[in-house]
Amino acid sequence: MEVYSEILEFDTKGEITIVDLTSMFEDLVSKSKIKNGVLSANVIGSTGALTTIEYETRVLTDFKQILEKLVPKGAGYKHDLIDSNAHSHLRASLIGPSLSLSIHNSRLQLGTWQQAVFICLDVRSRHRRVAVTIIGQ
Amino acid sequence: MEVYSEILEFDTKGEITIVDLTSMFEDLVSKSKIKNGVLSANVIGSTGALTTIEYETRVLTDFKQILEKLVPKGAGYKHDLIDSNAHSHLRASLIGPSLSLSIHNSRLQLGTWQQAVFICLDVRSRHRRVAVTIIGQ
Amino acid sequence: MEVYSEILEFDTKGEITIVDLTSMFEDLVSKSKIKNGVLSANVIGSTGALTTIEYETRVLTDFKQILEKLVPKGAGYKHDLIDSNAHSHLRASLIGPSLSLSIHNSRLQLGTWQQAVFICLDVRSRHRRVAVTIIGQ
Repeated sequence: MEVYSEILEFDTKGEITIVDLTSMFEDLVSKSKIKNGVLSANVIGSTGALTTIEYETRVLTDFKQILEKLVPKGAGYKHDLIDSNAHSHLRASLIGPSLSLSIHNSRLQLGTWQQAVFICLDVRSRHRRVAVTIIGQ
Repeated sequence: MEVYSEILEFDTKGEITIVDLTSMFEDLVSKSKIKNGVLSANVIGSTGALTTIEYETRVLTDFKQILEKLVPKGAGYKHDLIDSNAHSHLRASLIGPSLSLSIHNSRLQLGTWQQAVFICLDVRSRHRRVAVTIIGQ
Repeated sequence: MEVYSEILEFDTKGEITIVDLTSMFEDLVSKSKIKNGVLSANVIGSTGALTTIEYETRVLTDFKQILEKLVPKGAGYKHDLIDSNAHSHLRASLIGPSLSLSIHNSRLQLGTWQQAVFICLDVRSRHRRVAVTIIGQ
Protein backbone atom coordinates (compact mmCIF):
# COMPACT_ATOMS: atom_id res chain seq x y z
CA MET A 1 0.00 0.00 0.00
CA GLU A 2 1.37 3.37 -1.02
CA VAL A 3 0.60 7.05 -0.57
CA TYR A 4 1.52 9.54 -3.28
CA SER A 5 1.18 13.28 -2.52
CA GLU A 6 1.48 16.30 -4.77
CA ILE A 7 0.30 19.90 -5.04
CA LEU A 8 -0.88 20.89 -8.52
CA GLU A 9 -0.16 24.55 -9.27
CA PHE A 10 -1.45 26.72 -12.10
CA ASP A 11 -2.65 30.24 -12.86
CA THR A 12 -6.22 31.28 -13.56
CA LYS A 13 -7.65 34.39 -15.19
CA GLY A 14 -10.48 34.90 -12.73
CA GLU A 15 -14.22 34.97 -13.21
CA ILE A 16 -14.95 32.20 -14.30
CA THR A 17 -12.02 30.02 -15.41
CA ILE A 18 -12.71 26.30 -15.78
CA VAL A 19 -9.47 24.29 -15.88
CA ASP A 20 -9.47 20.69 -17.12
CA LEU A 21 -7.40 18.75 -14.56
CA THR A 22 -7.98 15.29 -16.06
CA SER A 23 -4.62 14.82 -17.79
CA MET A 24 -2.80 16.26 -14.75
CA PHE A 25 -4.60 13.74 -12.53
CA GLU A 26 -3.79 10.93 -14.99
CA ASP A 27 -0.11 11.92 -14.93
CA LEU A 28 -0.10 11.69 -11.13
CA VAL A 29 -1.79 8.28 -11.24
CA SER A 30 0.92 7.15 -13.65
CA LYS A 31 3.74 8.59 -11.51
CA SER A 32 2.28 7.03 -8.35
CA LYS A 33 2.41 3.53 -9.93
CA ILE A 34 -0.75 2.79 -7.92
CA LYS A 35 -2.99 0.35 -9.80
CA ASN A 36 -6.02 0.21 -7.54
CA GLY A 37 -6.98 2.93 -5.12
CA VAL A 38 -8.42 6.40 -4.76
CA LEU A 39 -7.33 9.84 -5.94
CA SER A 40 -8.49 12.49 -3.49
CA ALA A 41 -8.22 16.14 -4.50
CA ASN A 42 -9.17 19.35 -2.74
CA VAL A 43 -8.87 23.02 -3.52
CA ILE A 44 -6.56 25.02 -1.27
CA GLY A 45 -8.47 28.31 -0.93
CA SER A 46 -12.10 29.30 -0.52
CA THR A 47 -12.97 30.75 -3.94
CA GLY A 48 -12.32 27.67 -6.08
CA ALA A 49 -14.25 24.42 -6.50
CA LEU A 50 -13.85 20.93 -7.94
CA THR A 51 -16.39 18.90 -9.88
CA THR A 52 -16.69 16.96 -13.13
CA ILE A 53 -18.31 18.18 -16.34
CA GLU A 54 -18.22 17.46 -20.06
CA TYR A 55 -15.42 19.80 -21.13
CA GLU A 56 -17.32 21.16 -24.15
CA THR A 57 -17.45 24.90 -24.89
CA ARG A 58 -21.22 25.22 -24.88
CA VAL A 59 -21.77 23.37 -21.60
CA LEU A 60 -19.00 25.39 -19.97
CA THR A 61 -20.73 28.62 -21.07
CA ASP A 62 -24.05 27.32 -19.78
CA PHE A 63 -22.41 26.45 -16.47
CA LYS A 64 -21.04 29.97 -16.05
CA GLN A 65 -24.46 31.42 -16.81
CA ILE A 66 -26.34 29.19 -14.39
CA LEU A 67 -23.90 30.19 -11.63
CA GLU A 68 -24.60 33.85 -12.38
CA LYS A 69 -28.33 33.15 -12.33
CA LEU A 70 -28.27 31.18 -9.06
CA VAL A 71 -25.75 33.33 -7.18
CA PRO A 72 -25.63 36.71 -8.97
CA LYS A 73 -22.58 38.90 -8.59
CA GLY A 74 -23.01 41.98 -6.41
CA ALA A 75 -26.50 41.16 -5.14
CA GLY A 76 -26.15 43.14 -1.91
CA TYR A 77 -23.97 40.63 -0.07
CA LYS A 78 -22.53 41.72 3.30
CA HIS A 79 -19.06 40.32 2.52
CA ASP A 80 -18.88 42.67 -0.50
CA LEU A 81 -18.41 45.53 1.97
CA ILE A 82 -14.91 44.20 2.75
CA ASP A 83 -14.07 42.40 -0.51
CA SER A 84 -16.09 42.32 -3.71
CA ASN A 85 -16.07 38.54 -4.09
CA ALA A 86 -18.90 37.35 -1.85
CA HIS A 87 -20.52 35.57 -4.80
CA SER A 88 -17.20 33.73 -5.43
CA HIS A 89 -17.22 32.32 -1.89
CA LEU A 90 -20.89 31.32 -2.04
CA ARG A 91 -20.54 29.56 -5.39
CA ALA A 92 -17.41 27.73 -4.22
CA SER A 93 -19.04 26.47 -1.01
CA LEU A 94 -22.13 25.29 -2.89
CA ILE A 95 -20.22 23.35 -5.57
CA GLY A 96 -17.75 22.01 -3.02
CA PRO A 97 -13.96 21.84 -2.64
CA SER A 98 -13.22 18.13 -2.91
CA LEU A 99 -13.44 15.20 -5.28
CA SER A 100 -12.58 11.55 -4.77
CA LEU A 101 -12.13 9.34 -7.81
CA SER A 102 -11.51 5.62 -8.12
CA ILE A 103 -8.45 4.18 -9.85
CA HIS A 104 -9.00 0.66 -11.20
CA ASN A 105 -6.30 -1.15 -13.19
CA SER A 106 -4.19 2.03 -13.31
CA ARG A 107 -7.04 4.03 -14.86
CA LEU A 108 -8.95 6.92 -13.38
CA GLN A 109 -12.60 5.88 -13.54
CA LEU A 110 -14.12 8.77 -15.49
CA GLY A 111 -16.41 8.65 -18.51
CA THR A 112 -15.25 9.56 -22.01
CA TRP A 113 -17.20 12.81 -21.92
CA GLN A 114 -16.49 13.56 -18.28
CA GLN A 115 -13.56 15.69 -17.16
CA ALA A 116 -12.35 16.60 -13.68
CA VAL A 117 -12.27 20.39 -13.44
CA PHE A 118 -11.10 23.18 -11.18
CA ILE A 119 -13.45 26.15 -11.26
CA CYS A 120 -11.90 29.49 -10.40
CA LEU A 121 -14.72 31.63 -9.07
CA ASP A 122 -12.69 34.58 -7.84
CA VAL A 123 -12.87 38.02 -9.45
CA ARG A 124 -9.19 38.34 -10.32
CA SER A 125 -6.26 36.32 -11.65
CA ARG A 126 -4.94 33.92 -9.05
CA HIS A 127 -2.18 31.41 -8.55
CA ARG A 128 -4.06 28.25 -7.67
CA ARG A 129 -3.18 25.11 -5.75
CA VAL A 130 -4.97 21.78 -5.59
CA ALA A 131 -3.81 19.16 -3.09
CA VAL A 132 -3.83 15.62 -4.47
CA THR A 133 -3.30 12.39 -2.56
CA ILE A 134 -3.41 8.95 -4.15
CA ILE A 135 -3.71 5.91 -1.88
CA GLY A 136 -3.74 2.30 -3.02
CA GLN A 137 -1.57 -0.52 -4.18
CA MET B 1 -4.44 -2.81 4.59
CA GLU B 2 -6.63 -3.82 1.66
CA VAL B 3 -8.14 -2.28 -1.48
CA TYR B 4 -11.43 -3.58 -2.83
CA SER B 5 -12.62 -2.35 -6.26
CA GLU B 6 -15.90 -2.82 -8.05
CA ILE B 7 -18.09 -1.17 -10.68
CA LEU B 8 -21.79 -1.06 -9.80
CA GLU B 9 -24.00 -1.31 -12.88
CA PHE B 10 -27.73 -0.68 -13.21
CA ASP B 11 -30.30 0.80 -15.59
CA THR B 12 -32.14 4.07 -15.08
CA LYS B 13 -35.32 5.40 -16.68
CA GLY B 14 -34.05 8.94 -17.19
CA GLU B 15 -35.31 12.25 -15.90
CA ILE B 16 -35.11 12.07 -12.86
CA THR B 17 -34.40 8.58 -11.47
CA ILE B 18 -33.11 8.43 -7.89
CA VAL B 19 -31.54 5.03 -7.14
CA ASP B 20 -30.91 3.96 -3.53
CA LEU B 21 -27.36 2.54 -3.51
CA THR B 22 -27.12 1.96 0.24
CA SER B 23 -27.64 -1.79 0.29
CA MET B 24 -25.33 -2.21 -2.73
CA PHE B 25 -22.63 -0.26 -0.87
CA GLU B 26 -23.24 -2.34 2.28
CA ASP B 27 -22.86 -5.55 0.26
CA LEU B 28 -19.51 -4.32 -1.07
CA VAL B 29 -18.35 -3.41 2.46
CA SER B 30 -19.30 -6.91 3.55
CA LYS B 31 -17.54 -8.56 0.59
CA SER B 32 -14.42 -6.43 1.11
CA LYS B 33 -14.08 -7.72 4.73
CA ILE B 34 -12.70 -4.25 5.55
CA LYS B 35 -13.66 -3.25 9.10
CA ASN B 36 -12.30 0.29 9.27
CA GLY B 37 -11.73 2.47 6.26
CA VAL B 38 -13.37 4.55 3.57
CA LEU B 39 -15.76 3.77 0.73
CA SER B 40 -15.17 6.14 -2.17
CA ALA B 41 -17.69 6.21 -5.01
CA ASN B 42 -17.91 8.25 -8.18
CA VAL B 43 -20.25 8.38 -11.13
CA ILE B 44 -18.76 7.36 -14.48
CA GLY B 45 -20.45 9.82 -16.85
CA SER B 46 -21.35 13.48 -16.73
CA THR B 47 -25.14 13.42 -16.35
CA GLY B 48 -25.37 11.56 -13.05
CA ALA B 49 -24.62 12.61 -9.48
CA LEU B 50 -24.13 11.12 -6.02
CA THR B 51 -25.37 12.46 -2.70
CA THR B 52 -27.30 11.30 0.36
CA ILE B 53 -30.97 11.95 1.08
CA GLU B 54 -33.79 10.50 3.15
CA TYR B 55 -35.21 7.99 0.68
CA GLU B 56 -38.82 8.96 1.30
CA THR B 57 -41.27 9.51 -1.58
CA ARG B 58 -42.22 13.07 -0.70
CA VAL B 59 -38.65 14.33 -0.23
CA LEU B 60 -37.63 12.67 -3.49
CA THR B 61 -40.46 14.49 -5.30
CA ASP B 62 -39.46 17.76 -3.65
CA PHE B 63 -35.87 17.19 -4.73
CA LYS B 64 -36.88 16.69 -8.36
CA GLN B 65 -38.95 19.88 -8.24
CA ILE B 66 -36.24 22.01 -6.70
CA LEU B 67 -33.82 20.86 -9.42
CA GLU B 68 -36.33 21.92 -12.07
CA LYS B 69 -36.78 25.27 -10.32
CA LEU B 70 -33.03 25.94 -9.93
CA VAL B 71 -31.90 24.62 -13.32
CA PRO B 72 -35.00 24.53 -15.55
CA LYS B 73 -35.06 22.23 -18.54
CA GLY B 74 -34.71 23.90 -21.94
CA ALA B 75 -34.01 27.40 -20.65
CA GLY B 76 -32.11 28.52 -23.74
CA TYR B 77 -28.88 26.65 -23.00
CA LYS B 78 -26.21 26.65 -25.71
CA HIS B 79 -25.46 22.92 -25.30
CA ASP B 80 -29.11 22.17 -26.17
CA LEU B 81 -28.24 23.07 -29.77
CA ILE B 82 -26.19 19.86 -30.02
CA ASP B 83 -27.95 17.68 -27.43
CA SER B 84 -31.08 18.46 -25.46
CA ASN B 85 -29.62 17.64 -22.05
CA ALA B 86 -27.75 20.80 -21.04
CA HIS B 87 -29.78 20.98 -17.82
CA SER B 88 -28.74 17.37 -17.03
CA HIS B 89 -25.05 18.32 -17.21
CA LEU B 90 -25.51 21.48 -15.14
CA ARG B 91 -27.47 19.72 -12.40
CA ALA B 92 -24.92 16.89 -12.26
CA SER B 93 -21.95 19.25 -11.94
CA LEU B 94 -23.65 21.27 -9.20
CA ILE B 95 -24.61 18.26 -7.07
CA GLY B 96 -21.27 16.57 -7.68
CA PRO B 97 -20.04 13.18 -8.88
CA SER B 98 -18.36 11.71 -5.80
CA LEU B 99 -19.05 10.59 -2.27
CA SER B 100 -16.71 9.32 0.41
CA LEU B 101 -18.17 7.49 3.39
CA SER B 102 -16.54 6.14 6.54
CA ILE B 103 -16.68 2.48 7.51
CA HIS B 104 -16.28 1.91 11.26
CA ASN B 105 -16.55 -1.57 12.78
CA SER B 106 -17.69 -3.00 9.42
CA ARG B 107 -20.58 -0.52 9.20
CA LEU B 108 -21.09 2.26 6.72
CA GLN B 109 -21.53 5.39 8.82
CA LEU B 110 -24.89 6.67 7.57
CA GLY B 111 -27.90 7.75 9.58
CA THR B 112 -31.07 5.67 9.83
CA TRP B 113 -32.97 8.09 7.59
CA GLN B 114 -30.06 8.78 5.26
CA GLN B 115 -29.47 6.83 2.07
CA ALA B 116 -26.64 7.05 -0.47
CA VAL B 117 -28.21 7.73 -3.85
CA PHE B 118 -27.36 7.91 -7.52
CA ILE B 119 -29.34 10.59 -9.33
CA CYS B 120 -29.83 10.04 -13.04
CA LEU B 121 -30.33 13.49 -14.52
CA ASP B 122 -30.22 12.55 -18.19
CA VAL B 123 -33.26 12.79 -20.46
CA ARG B 124 -33.35 9.18 -21.54
CA SER B 125 -32.91 5.64 -20.19
CA ARG B 126 -29.27 4.86 -19.55
CA HIS B 127 -27.06 2.01 -18.45
CA ARG B 128 -25.23 3.50 -15.49
CA ARG B 129 -21.91 2.74 -13.84
CA VAL B 130 -20.59 3.86 -10.45
CA ALA B 131 -16.96 3.13 -9.56
CA VAL B 132 -16.47 2.06 -5.94
CA THR B 133 -13.20 1.62 -4.07
CA ILE B 134 -12.95 0.57 -0.43
CA ILE B 135 -9.65 1.08 1.38
CA GLY B 136 -8.93 0.06 4.95
CA GLN B 137 -8.12 -2.85 7.19
CA MET C 1 -0.18 2.36 6.57
CA GLU C 2 -2.67 3.20 9.27
CA VAL C 3 -6.41 3.83 9.66
CA TYR C 4 -7.66 6.19 12.36
CA SER C 5 -11.44 6.37 13.01
CA GLU C 6 -13.46 8.71 15.17
CA ILE C 7 -16.95 10.15 15.47
CA LEU C 8 -17.06 13.89 16.18
CA GLU C 9 -20.06 14.85 18.31
CA PHE C 10 -21.45 18.30 19.04
CA ASP C 11 -24.74 20.16 19.52
CA THR C 12 -26.26 22.63 17.08
CA LYS C 13 -28.92 25.27 17.56
CA GLY C 14 -30.80 24.57 14.32
CA GLU C 15 -31.51 26.75 11.33
CA ILE C 16 -28.76 27.55 10.21
CA THR C 17 -25.78 26.73 12.44
CA ILE C 18 -22.37 26.70 10.75
CA VAL C 19 -19.78 24.90 12.89
CA ASP C 20 -16.06 25.33 12.19
CA LEU C 21 -14.62 21.79 12.29
CA THR C 22 -11.07 22.73 11.24
CA SER C 23 -9.37 22.55 14.64
CA MET C 24 -11.25 19.34 15.46
CA PHE C 25 -10.00 17.82 12.20
CA GLU C 26 -6.45 19.06 12.94
CA ASP C 27 -6.59 17.44 16.39
CA LEU C 28 -7.56 14.13 14.81
CA VAL C 29 -4.74 14.40 12.27
CA SER C 30 -2.36 15.00 15.15
CA LYS C 31 -3.73 12.09 17.21
CA SER C 32 -3.59 9.77 14.19
CA LYS C 33 0.17 10.43 13.76
CA ILE C 34 -0.47 10.05 10.00
CA LYS C 35 1.88 12.30 8.03
CA ASN C 36 0.66 11.75 4.49
CA GLY C 37 -2.83 10.60 3.61
CA VAL C 38 -6.47 11.58 3.40
CA LEU C 39 -9.04 12.70 5.94
CA SER C 40 -12.50 11.62 4.85
CA ALA C 41 -15.50 13.01 6.72
CA ASN C 42 -19.23 12.52 6.29
CA VAL C 43 -22.32 13.71 8.07
CA ILE C 44 -24.36 11.04 9.82
CA GLY C 45 -27.92 12.25 9.17
CA SER C 46 -29.76 13.78 6.24
CA THR C 47 -30.22 17.41 7.32
CA GLY C 48 -26.57 18.39 7.69
CA ALA C 49 -23.85 19.07 5.12
CA LEU C 50 -20.08 19.51 4.87
CA THR C 51 -18.15 22.01 2.79
CA THR C 52 -15.41 24.61 3.19
CA ILE C 53 -15.90 28.37 3.50
CA GLU C 54 -14.04 31.41 4.79
CA TYR C 55 -15.29 31.44 8.39
CA GLU C 56 -16.01 35.18 8.42
CA THR C 57 -19.27 36.56 9.86
CA ARG C 58 -20.40 38.38 6.73
CA VAL C 59 -19.82 35.46 4.35
CA LEU C 60 -21.59 33.13 6.76
CA THR C 61 -24.61 35.47 6.79
CA ASP C 62 -24.53 35.69 3.00
CA PHE C 63 -24.40 31.90 2.80
CA LYS C 64 -27.50 31.53 5.00
CA GLN C 65 -29.35 34.06 2.85
CA ILE C 66 -28.43 32.45 -0.46
CA LEU C 67 -29.69 29.09 0.84
CA GLU C 68 -33.01 30.73 1.77
CA LYS C 69 -33.18 32.32 -1.69
CA LEU C 70 -32.34 29.11 -3.57
CA VAL C 71 -34.39 26.70 -1.45
CA PRO C 72 -36.92 28.80 0.49
CA LYS C 73 -38.41 27.43 3.68
CA GLY C 74 -42.02 26.29 3.49
CA ALA C 75 -42.41 26.68 -0.27
CA GLY C 76 -45.18 24.10 -0.60
CA TYR C 77 -42.95 21.03 -0.30
CA LYS C 78 -44.69 17.65 -0.05
CA HIS C 79 -42.43 16.43 2.76
CA ASP C 80 -43.60 19.37 4.90
CA LEU C 81 -46.91 17.53 5.28
CA ILE C 82 -45.17 14.98 7.51
CA ASP C 83 -42.30 17.06 8.92
CA SER C 84 -41.68 20.77 8.44
CA ASN C 85 -38.05 20.40 7.35
CA ALA C 86 -38.26 19.60 3.63
CA HIS C 87 -36.04 22.57 2.82
CA SER C 88 -33.44 21.23 5.29
CA HIS C 89 -33.25 17.93 3.40
CA LEU C 90 -33.06 19.60 -0.01
CA ARG C 91 -30.32 22.02 1.03
CA ALA C 92 -28.31 19.19 2.62
CA SER C 93 -28.50 16.98 -0.46
CA LEU C 94 -27.48 19.84 -2.76
CA ILE C 95 -24.45 20.90 -0.71
CA GLY C 96 -23.46 17.30 -0.05
CA PRO C 97 -22.60 15.15 2.96
CA SER C 98 -18.93 14.35 2.48
CA LEU C 99 -15.53 15.97 2.26
CA SER C 100 -12.13 14.47 1.57
CA LEU C 101 -9.04 16.50 2.42
CA SER C 102 -5.36 15.80 1.83
CA ILE C 103 -2.83 15.59 4.65
CA HIS C 104 0.72 16.39 3.54
CA ASN C 105 3.60 16.51 6.04
CA SER C 106 1.16 16.19 8.95
CA ARG C 107 -0.82 19.24 7.81
CA LEU C 108 -4.37 19.37 6.55
CA GLN C 109 -4.14 21.05 3.14
CA LEU C 110 -6.54 23.96 3.57
CA GLY C 111 -5.98 27.63 2.78
CA THR C 112 -5.49 30.25 5.48
CA TRP C 113 -8.95 31.70 4.85
CA GLN C 114 -10.62 28.34 4.28
CA GLN C 115 -12.30 26.38 7.04
CA ALA C 116 -13.96 22.96 6.99
CA VAL C 117 -17.54 23.41 8.22
CA PHE C 118 -20.56 21.41 9.27
CA ILE C 119 -23.80 23.11 8.28
CA CYS C 120 -26.81 22.25 10.38
CA LEU C 121 -29.82 22.82 8.16
CA ASP C 122 -32.49 21.33 10.39
CA VAL C 123 -35.21 23.43 12.02
CA ARG C 124 -34.44 22.50 15.61
CA SER C 125 -31.51 21.91 17.98
CA ARG C 126 -29.82 18.62 17.28
CA HIS C 127 -27.05 16.43 18.60
CA ARG C 128 -24.82 15.98 15.58
CA ARG C 129 -22.32 13.33 14.51
CA VAL C 130 -19.68 13.45 11.80
CA ALA C 131 -17.78 10.27 10.95
CA VAL C 132 -14.08 10.84 10.29
CA THR C 133 -11.57 8.36 8.90
CA ILE C 134 -7.91 9.14 8.29
CA ILE C 135 -5.88 6.79 6.11
CA GLY C 136 -2.19 7.14 5.33
CA GLN C 137 1.26 6.61 6.72
